[in-house]
Amino acid sequence: MNRGLLFVLSGPSGVGKGTVCASLRTKMPELIYSVSATTRTPREGEKDGVNYFFKSREQFQDMIQGDALLEYAEYVGNYYGTPRDFVEKTLSEGKDIILEIEVQGALKVKEKFPDGVFIFLMPPSLNELASRLGGRGTETQATIDHRLSVARDEINLLYHYDYAVVNDQIDLACKRIDAIMTAEHCKRQRFLHELCNELDAISTAENV
Amino acid sequence: MNRGLLFVLSGPSGVGKGTVCASLRTKMPELIYSVSATTRTPREGEKDGVNYFFKSREQFQDMIQGDALLEYAEYVGNYYGTPRDFVEKTLSEGKDIILEIEVQGALKVKEKFPDGVFIFLMPPSLNELASRLGGRGTETQATIDHRLSVARDEINLLYHYDYAVVNDQIDLACKRIDAIMTAEHCKRQRFLHELCNELDAISTAENV
Repeated sequence: MNRGLLFVLSGPSGVGKGTVCASLRTKMPELIYSVSATTRTPREGEKDGVNYFFKSREQFQDMIQGDALLEYAEYVGNYYGTPRDFVEKTLSEGKDIILEIEVQGALKVKEKFPDGVFIFLMPPSLNELASRLGGRGTETQATIDHRLSVARDEINLLYHYDYAVVNDQIDLACKRIDAIMTAEHCKRQRFLHELCNELDAISTAENV
Repeated sequence: MNRGLLFVLSGPSGVGKGTVCASLRTKMPELIYSVSATTRTPREGEKDGVNYFFKSREQFQDMIQGDALLEYAEYVGNYYGTPRDFVEKTLSEGKDIILEIEVQGALKVKEKFPDGVFIFLMPPSLNELASRLGGRGTETQATIDHRLSVARDEINLLYHYDYAVVNDQIDLACKRIDAIMTAEHCKRQRFLHELCNELDAISTAENV
């Protein structure tokens, strides 16, 4: 059986990663979503293994030391991280998995999982970027320069990604992500691997 | 303006390239199809520049010598080839173009146009390949070995392609090709180029 593919959806804060992912969930119910581990207390209705894997601080630190996390970070006194075994198990079952994560986390995942497909969700459009940056007329040059520099930093991040998806409309962004998933499964090297195994099996069977 | 992309659809003879392309034409009317040049006589109803660019033998030979063809071949005494300028013009207008071509021609196009996106249309399924090769029970071992060797040759061709699309159902094959086209437009390097130009333009405008 072929392994599934890991898709990592990331992008600057405020770009709409969560909204796009929520929409993908309804459009692609067969897709598996990576479940994070956390040390924070479960909120009402949250289920272990569904919303999060809830861990004690000690358990989480053991995971860190055992290299059981693809990435982790601490926010407001709580750990959050991506358990490696859930991702690995899903992929080995031949299923795709998607991980929605902020930019720093995505870069860490890439170190441990270079075979992942990294998708950068982009601000709505270049025109909008331009108008955000310079078009309001009320900002000082220093503010504009700062925004320009932030935009350059964001764009530089793109180098680490395979794809950029503009989030101009949620449905369009989802369609593009869906297309990327389909296309990645059509990549030649994945077929070669499968076909060579198949032909070897035929040759062997015939020579018995 | 961004350049369009050249998509090359190829694959072994009999795999259904023509049928898939005809279906793509109805599903994606905005896509431009490469028009071949030929020295053969126009058939009734065929239009110059639509079905083919009809050329005299001298004109065609001038095109060969002027490197005006991405590839060409001679069949049954007539030349057929892909004019470079039609492809270049379409791309420079920011439009995508698709070229349906047999395998040897595709390899020649790749030499001249390595930036093209090369899609290999595959026989329906690995199971079917297996049954075609060995399952009929009436063939001699020599016949089976020959088929196996042909299949290996076809599969080896895959190394030259970016994608493999299984032609199990025409609609599915078209959907995959459509997805590949969308995904290729989302490739990070295409955005980087565009974004850097855009930001440079903003910086320049602001510093005036």
